[in-house]
Amino acid sequence: MTTPRPFLSDNAAAVHPYVWDAMRAADNADNPYDGDTLSAQLDERFSALFGRECAAVWVATGTAANCLALATMVQPHGGVVCHEEAHIEVDEGGAPGFYLHGAKLMLAGGEGAKLTPQDIAALIDPIRDDVHQVQPHAIAITQASEYGRSYTPGELAVLAEFATARRLGLHMDGARFANAAAFPGGTAQEAARAAAGPVDSLAFGFIKNGGMSAEAVILFDPQQADLVKYRRKRAGHLQCKGRYLAAQILAMLDDDLWLANARHANAAAQEIAAGCGQRLLHPVEANELFVHLTPKEREALRGQDFAFYDWGDDAARFVTAWNTEDADAVALGRAIAAL
Amino acid sequence: MTTPRPFLSDNAAAVHPYVWDAMRAADNADNPYDGDTLSAQLDERFSALFGRECAAVWVATGTAANCLALATMVQPHGGVVCHEEAHIEVDEGGAPGFYLHGAKLMLAGGEGAKLTPQDIAALIDPIRDDVHQVQPHAIAITQASEYGRSYTPGELAVLAEFATARRLGLHMDGARFANAAAFPGGTAQEAARAAAGPVDSLAFGFIKNGGMSAEAVILFDPQQADLVKYRRKRAGHLQCKGRYLAAQILAMLDDDLWLANARHANAAAQEIAAGCGQRLLHPVEANELFVHLTPKEREALRGQDFAFYDWGDDAARFVTAWNTEDADAVALGRAIAAL
Amino acid sequence: MTTPRPFLSDNAAAVHPYVWDAMRAADNADNPYDGDTLSAQLDERFSALFGRECAAVWVATGTAANCLALATMVQPHGGVVCHEEAHIEVDEGGAPGFYLHGAKLMLAGGEGAKLTPQDIAALIDPIRDDVHQVQPHAIAITQASEYGRSYTPGELAVLAEFATARRLGLHMDGARFANAAAFPGGTAQEAARAAAGPVDSLAFGFIKNGGMSAEAVILFDPQQADLVKYRRKRAGHLQCKGRYLAAQILAMLDDDLWLANARHANAAAQEIAAGCGQRLLHPVEANELFVHLTPKEREALRGQDFAFYDWGDDAARFVTAWNTEDADAVALGRAIAAL
Amino acid sequence: MTTPRPFLSDNAAAVHPYVWDAMRAADNADNPYDGDTLSAQLDERFSALFGRECAAVWVATGTAANCLALATMVQPHGGVVCHEEAHIEVDEGGAPGFYLHGAKLMLAGGEGAKLTPQDIAALIDPIRDDVHQVQPHAIAITQASEYGRSYTPGELAVLAEFATARRLGLHMDGARFANAAAFPGGTAQEAARAAAGPVDSLAFGFIKNGGMSAEAVILFDPQQADLVKYRRKRAGHLQCKGRYLAAQILAMLDDDLWLANARHANAAAQEIAAGCGQRLLHPVEANELFVHLTPKEREALRGQDFAFYDWGDDAARFVTAWNTEDADAVALGRAIAAL
Repeated sequence: MTTPRPFLSDNAAAVHPYVWDAMRAADNADNPYDGDTLSAQLDERFSALFGRECAAVWVATGTAANCLALATMVQPHGGVVCHEEAHIEVDEGGAPGFYLHGAKLMLAGGEGAKLTPQDIAALIDPIRDDVHQVQPHAIAITQASEYGRSYTPGELAVLAEFATARRLGLHMDGARFANAAAFPGGTAQEAARAAAGPVDSLAFGFIKNGGMSAEAVILFDPQQADLVKYRRKRAGHLQCKGRYLAAQILAMLDDDLWLANARHANAAAQEIAAGCGQRLLHPVEANELFVHLTPKEREALRGQDFAFYDWGDDAARFVTAWNTEDADAVALGRAIAAL
Repeated sequence: MTTPRPFLSDNAAAVHPYVWDAMRAADNADNPYDGDTLSAQLDERFSALFGRECAAVWVATGTAANCLALATMVQPHGGVVCHEEAHIEVDEGGAPGFYLHGAKLMLAGGEGAKLTPQDIAALIDPIRDDVHQVQPHAIAITQASEYGRSYTPGELAVLAEFATARRLGLHMDGARFANAAAFPGGTAQEAARAAAGPVDSLAFGFIKNGGMSAEAVILFDPQQADLVKYRRKRAGHLQCKGRYLAAQILAMLDDDLWLANARHANAAAQEIAAGCGQRLLHPVEANELFVHLTPKEREALRGQDFAFYDWGDDAARFVTAWNTEDADAVALGRAIAAL
Repeated sequence: MTTPRPFLSDNAAAVHPYVWDAMRAADNADNPYDGDTLSAQLDERFSALFGRECAAVWVATGTAANCLALATMVQPHGGVVCHEEAHIEVDEGGAPGFYLHGAKLMLAGGEGAKLTPQDIAALIDPIRDDVHQVQPHAIAITQASEYGRSYTPGELAVLAEFATARRLGLHMDGARFANAAAFPGGTAQEAARAAAGPVDSLAFGFIKNGGMSAEAVILFDPQQADLVKYRRKRAGHLQCKGRYLAAQILAMLDDDLWLANARHANAAAQEIAAGCGQRLLHPVEANELFVHLTPKEREALRGQDFAFYDWGDDAARFVTAWNTEDADAVALGRAIAAL
Repeated sequence: MTTPRPFLSDNAAAVHPYVWDAMRAADNADNPYDGDTLSAQLDERFSALFGRECAAVWVATGTAANCLALATMVQPHGGVVCHEEAHIEVDEGGAPGFYLHGAKLMLAGGEGAKLTPQDIAALIDPIRDDVHQVQPHAIAITQASEYGRSYTPGELAVLAEFATARRLGLHMDGARFANAAAFPGGTAQEAARAAAGPVDSLAFGFIKNGGMSAEAVILFDPQQADLVKYRRKRAGHLQCKGRYLAAQILAMLDDDLWLANARHANAAAQEIAAGCGQRLLHPVEANELFVHLTPKEREALRGQDFAFYDWGDDAARFVTAWNTEDADAVALGRAIAAL
């Protein structure tokens, strides 16, 4: 039997060797929780990367990262505007309702699972300013979006302006932030700053990009770190051997491994995209492809050992990862082109 | 200046004289909370009315009544299917999120703000049966609906059958239950039983129908009363002079005052409807009318001292109450017809 | 059979006739919820009474009043310092845990169910300033205390100073605030200001003092009113006929009825106290008496038709009310003295 | 400078080499979340170990493990009886309040931080069976206790009998379960079964015993697994590369590594205890020692490079771990004896 050529997701990919090395190197005893020497470096490292002061708090999942960040912005009686296909709405098992103590997700439309001020205004302008209706407290966007689309710096700027005008916090779910940042090119600093724009908080994902179990909650108002740390502990997310999480993140920052890994995945996605032509449902701006494929066509691809998820009845989703084999990507692109 | 002829809402109408009398009669000291002799009669009275054993728990608002009933059916990690225009979604300030500890409202479509098994299935069938997606635990319907529509016994039967098949609880928001029950006619017992159908719980509203501050949570599985009572206390809704709430409810049940009041309001609504013709956006099956009226037409009506709310740009909502003056209803019907 | 002479509690006493009158006078339709003309007067009336600007929000129970006020001070991950015998800890069915989303009650000792800075410091000073331990966010005191003791202006001043120094909010549960205020004498303004001291919020109770179903949440930082109003709605406590609650409160404020009623109850308590001598477990500074009485003595009193609760094995609690008959109080005092 | 000889805690110790090996071996892609082949083995492995059918769910911290287990037993309006020095009360940042949606921890006394039926009855018997007081829903004990004490099978049996009689769930916080199990000796199966007794759920700790980031929630009613899995996801604890957590746990079960590690730590503790004599505050039944030591004596020990925490003013806590050097333990025992 042939090993399947994996395009199911990047979320179960192997851990990058450099990350393994960093974790092993952290094996010596250190202070527990986040009192260790590695965790202590995070604020400074991310502040340098983003070019503005920030606090960085590790946590083991993107779900927790998003919720902890949103808790700095959203009261229990408020709401979070997000896209109706946002991960926090569709695939996080109600975590925002738990972490935000019953706050409401308010669902906007928007092309490519991206939000614009117009989309948001259409949702929230009709809300009466009275206690009978839940008022929005924050906006959450996903970079790259659930359809693999990236927000440009210009788009982020107008969203931030809108959020400020409406007194709403602006959070970015960056489960695939690296892929979004890698898309337009540039140095690590340029890429990170362009992809984050002026958001208030960012869940910077590393797990899908070669890490094992560490994401970073980035708080661009560092004074919010205290709240996040109390809430992290209260949520059972303060690991006593936290140094292994910090080690993962630092390994990803060292030599811009996060960006290199994302570039690799994105390049593989472009390789495949080249074979898709008109089949693409969305422009490929990160490492996900949504491709129109009939059931029969999908069957044919699976017959060639390509593994992937169906996306509704007429399409498939392909995801590349930091360790996608070039040959597999090339083969997939050709196989689709040949259908 | 003329007194306005009020069709804004039934929610601020005066208290019925019999209700006042019953409250005054309850003035003598009795046991506090719900240990009084009046509260003790509720279970039996409602069991007789509905023809099946039930427990009845007073509470001061419909919002609390709905939420306490839903708490018997919905785990914090679950969801409640309701109409996208349901009161619990639109106008209760996020109360379900609070009382259900972050459970999610899952919004279905449906004509006239009513739900059918088809509407619900369209919403919940695509939900993957895995922990990443919130699973529905209950269905909440409104009788009469937010557009003044009533569920028939047949409609309720198929909804209950569907709920049972999907292992979902079935709750009825009956803020205007009396009006829905009065619509098809029959004795009080016939009307109550037909309007409630086989639901698991009912928030039986009295406040809009001549009461002051008492609704009844009806639990057709009386074993759930214990949970509701603990949660009522925990929500600060166990009033120490609860006998005044029980007195209101008993006054409404005595001589079927609840039904007589609702019939009066419904009759006034029909009177108005007779003048609306093709202007009606929804059939009038209770005491609310949604009427197509241009801004200029609305201005004309207000010039004749009719008070009402706009409903979007091209319509108005009129609500009748237990104390609507017949002459006012007649006048309004004629005024609309004359536009 | 003789009617019992009631000293069980003040919480189920009849409603004062002036309150009934005010409620009936509010029967005419007005704006729903708290948009009515009566509710609109509360801020000004209480600001005048207390001599500093405040916002006043009605709510139907003391439990809800306390919790809504505390929600302005306490984050879900924080704690509220209160006496180990405080009503919010012992008798509110876990309501603070619900309203504060899991925040913790932190229990201090203190003579007569009163707190001092020393009591509180003994509790909170050992708390490590780290995320593993819940940090206090507020202090809640009860005026009069659960043992009928009153805080003096001097005691309140040092508590407030302590709270400020520790950056803690200071809330007062005033279920029997009127009785505490009436104790030292003075005009209504003098009494109210002395009894409230410099607290941040007060749950001003009227129900035990002749009202039916209305307490006032007093927020001495009026900017907090918005949060309380959103949370009140979310908790199902925004009654649509709120004018009847406002009417109760205004009736109590008119001609200082709240103070007259409390003085009456306090005087009755002093009458009884005069017969208790060394039997008193606590000084009588409001309208509650805790009296050492053997089971046999209690039996003897009950044989004379006095109704009251046992307090442990060797004592009884007697509570007077606005409508306690002078003759009953005199008779009770003599009966105890004669034991 | 000399390397300190570490007796601060076992919670930051290095990861055992076999655990590292198992994690690396899990590097190949597998199904995400807990759909992998390793996670699939847990139920069977633990059922065999404990000799009764159970479900096992991995999670990254003991805090989350305890809370998720308790959520199967405790309604939001209920309470959990635990020792007043229990970790869930003192050191989990209010996590139970969060996970249990405001449920209350009810604090009992008990020698050595252990609970007996008598301790619990003294706490809960005075609770009135009414809605004003929070009712207990479960008991949580810690094995080994916060003072390093172990429950015997006999003690567990009477606790379970008591819990059943009172209709309370019985949960065991087993952060150092392995150390408690290792104390009396026996095979792995004998030790595990004796140490768990008939509890309903167990948070089986591996992190302090050589793991990195995986504890197991053991549910002896496997039907509760579903609830725990939904709640785990909702709490952001369902890691997408869950196979690395399962790998850690399986490595600990293989060849009874968990027991061997615990025996090593316990033996080191006994070695130290041998030098403590009358200084011991508690019998040493696991891997923690609480030793009477004056400030001067502690200074002397620190001068010899022993690292440990003060325990109040007159004592110190020493914790051994799976990797404690025998020579260090011997040296510490001698150093204390020589004071």
